Amino acid sequence: MKLILAVVQDKDSNRLTDALGEKDFKTTKLSTTGGFLKEGNTTLIIGCEDELVDDALQVIKDNCSQREQMIAPISPMGGNADSYIPRPINVEVGGATVFILPVESFFQF
Amino acid sequence: MKLILAVVQDKDSNRLTDALGEKDFKTTKLSTTGGFLKEGNTTLIIGCEDELVDDALQVIKDNCSQREQMIAPISPMGGNADSYIPRPINVEVGGATVFILPVESFFQF
Amino acid sequence: MKLILAVVQDKDSNRLTDALGEKDFKTTKLSTTGGFLKEGNTTLIIGCEDELVDDALQVIKDNCSQREQMIAPISPMGGNADSYIPRPINVEVGGATVFILPVESFFQF
Ligand code: NI
Ligand code: NI
Ligand code: NI
Repeated sequence: MKLILAVVQDKDSNRLTDALGEKDFKTTKLSTTGGFLKEGNTTLIIGCEDELVDDALQVIKDNCSQREQMIAPISPMGGNADSYIPRPINVEVGGATVFILPVESFFQF
Repeated sequence: MKLILAVVQDKDSNRLTDALGEKDFKTTKLSTTGGFLKEGNTTLIIGCEDELVDDALQVIKDNCSQREQMIAPISPMGGNADSYIPRPINVEVGGATVFILPVESFFQF
Repeated sequence: MKLILAVVQDKDSNRLTDALGEKDFKTTKLSTTGGFLKEGNTTLIIGCEDELVDDALQVIKDNCSQREQMIAPISPMGGNADSYIPRPINVEVGGATVFILPVESFFQF
């Protein structure tokens, strides 16, 4: 058995949890901040059999890989110059940092 | 040394923490959601010596095992038909999912 | 690769995260309560290469070691006798409980 610890962006975490659930992976969600990824991340704990680790990794990859997202222009209405985006831009979103930990034993009561 | 990761229901977590504390186990509580158990769970991290793992497991088992609980009837007052329970029913509550992880080294500063 | 799990006091956690970041350690912060230390603690997850574990431990030690702090007297204004401190006292603050866990594999997507 292995414990998969996956740090993903908040925006990807529900889709990931659903996709894992469809393949009968059980997950527990920790609310976390900062660090491995930009602000606003979630850490999932997934317990799984050794032979299913690759499947779980594929689901994480499919749902959370780093990718570019087009952001529509934002006019400086309301006077918030900080969030003024004059033309469409691409930003990097998503990404996952995944640790596979060995499990010595596992119990359910 | 081992690290015990125990996912339990919120309703059992204070009783479990108290029971572990009485036996001098130190716990750290993570707030978690979903997954291994029905919604509303708590994950406890318990660091303990190898020879005490069985004791800790027994405390978890004693305080968090899955069991049936009688739910009293709820009349449909207030018009909330969803929560209308016409007669006493038994529901499953509790349960614990426990991972024992090996620890390479341990420090206190 | 190792996973460092460090439980520290809330008051030390930002300084620690900054100090770790300056040395290029990536951290993820879990909000936790109770247990290994007095109430109000934070658990950091730090993924790091084997040869950098000692460096990370030194940063944790430098920023979170248990130490004495002088508390200024508090007069019983407002009638809260519980928090009345008649003369300066020393209290223990800080402290860190650190687990080093083996990592079988590590991925970034
Ligand atoms: Ni196994
Ligand atoms: Ni040991
Ligand atoms: Ni390694």
